[in-house]
Amino acid sequence: MTEKRNLLLTIRYQGTAYHGFQVQKNAVTVAQTFQDALESVLGKREDIKGCSRTDSGVHANMFCVNVKTDSKIPCDALVRALNVKLPCDIAVQQCREVRQDFHARYDCKGKRYLYQINNSPIKDPFAYRLVYDYRYPIDVEMCNRQCKDFIGTHDFSAFCAANSSVEDHVRTITDCGMVRNKERVTFFVEGDGFLYNMVRIMVGTVLEIAAGIKAPGCIPAIIQGKDRAAAGATAPAWGLYLDEVFYDWKSLDNTSEE
Amino acid sequence: MTEKRNLLLTIRYQGTAYHGFQVQKNAVTVAQTFQDALESVLGKREDIKGCSRTDSGVHANMFCVNVKTDSKIPCDALVRALNVKLPCDIAVQQCREVRQDFHARYDCKGKRYLYQINNSPIKDPFAYRLVYDYRYPIDVEMCNRQCKDFIGTHDFSAFCAANSSVEDHVRTITDCGMVRNKERVTFFVEGDGFLYNMVRIMVGTVLEIAAGIKAPGCIPAIIQGKDRAAAGATAPAWGLYLDEVFYDWKSLDNTSEE
Repeated sequence: MTEKRNLLLTIRYQGTAYHGFQVQKNAVTVAQTFQDALESVLGKREDIKGCSRTDSGVHANMFCVNVKTDSKIPCDALVRALNVKLPCDIAVQQCREVRQDFHARYDCKGKRYLYQINNSPIKDPFAYRLVYDYRYPIDVEMCNRQCKDFIGTHDFSAFCAANSSVEDHVRTITDCGMVRNKERVTFFVEGDGFLYNMVRIMVGTVLEIAAGIKAPGCIPAIIQGKDRAAAGATAPAWGLYLDEVFYDWKSLDNTSEE
Repeated sequence: MTEKRNLLLTIRYQGTAYHGFQVQKNAVTVAQTFQDALESVLGKREDIKGCSRTDSGVHANMFCVNVKTDSKIPCDALVRALNVKLPCDIAVQQCREVRQDFHARYDCKGKRYLYQINNSPIKDPFAYRLVYDYRYPIDVEMCNRQCKDFIGTHDFSAFCAANSSVEDHVRTITDCGMVRNKERVTFFVEGDGFLYNMVRIMVGTVLEIAAGIKAPGCIPAIIQGKDRAAAGATAPAWGLYLDEVFYDWKSLDNTSEE
């Protein structure tokens, strides 16, 4: 019996129409839609492993999945065939064969998220459901300084949705900040992992500082207090993008044939 | 009896959900949706004049309409109120009071259109219905040279949809070209007026030259032949943007009170 190939597929998707990535009963998700396309190309329904869960309405500039298959279809042809079968809001960017024990989620070293805000009194008719329309002034320089307080290894219990079942709330944030390009304000954060709703609560907290609801410099005390109620409201899903997934790319090659 | 105010409103819209600008029976259009919002703000249904017709699915970065009203609501307040009432895919950018006899269509001096192409084998999941996905290579330098043949005053009968009822097919094109920014290819054209489907047929013709279906340098002969069948196919509506509408802005002020 020949070993199955383990394929790492990089996809992009607009999350508007989906109830997140993960397969759910009674809701259309990215995973299920992707599996449907894969099944029609491979002629067989395969299990897929995603790098992350994403919430309903959240987008991904880069998302990784791996699938084991005994299909011999070359990677390039698989990308082309999947892009024909997939709906317009999901696209496969790349496919590569990786080592047998690679797992898109467990091998992930970290991620970068972006949160996109249209900071204007007038909504952008080309970006609804793709950015968060926030009309009140944002002092981006000041907010950027606040973001630096997230950097480091902390217990982020205060920045985790109350209904999360994860027990270990310690995460390491390696970079975080806010930049402006005209009316577009972008919050960015990189880290080794993120709790449920963590990025959206971080954004909500920074926006409450911008609005004067919370005091500048409050973030370290909120982190230390570990109380979800002390942090800001959860920002809407549709501004959030999983932007990049980090792997130790050099260690991923399939060496089984050597 | 006091004279009504004549208001010039600048709007932007994503045309995906609409059967063009112009009011139609049994189809949702931008004009009708805009009139509904205006009616709920002014308390009265007013007639509006648009600067142009746009086809079903065509977008506008800038579109102008004028409306006569006896409402005294200040321009700023009208913009805010309309943006609350309008759906997410239509936004009012500006409002100004103009001279009594201003007409958004008859006073228009010219327009610029853009045609947006995603020139990549992989579709952009964030831009479906906002760009034309065209996967075959485009030699943009060569196409840009072809576009220059449109410039000038010509009878554009060959670039007019067969079912057009307009009799005078002479138009002056002042600028036309094609540029690339990574995978995004943009065709641009400016002129004093455009025939039905004219820009989309121009784009379709240039793309047929890019694909080798037509020979470089063929455009002057196609113009001269005045035969629609000699030009290229009509490119899809969803790549087209009315980008700017030109007026003699200094002559628009309302001087009736002086």
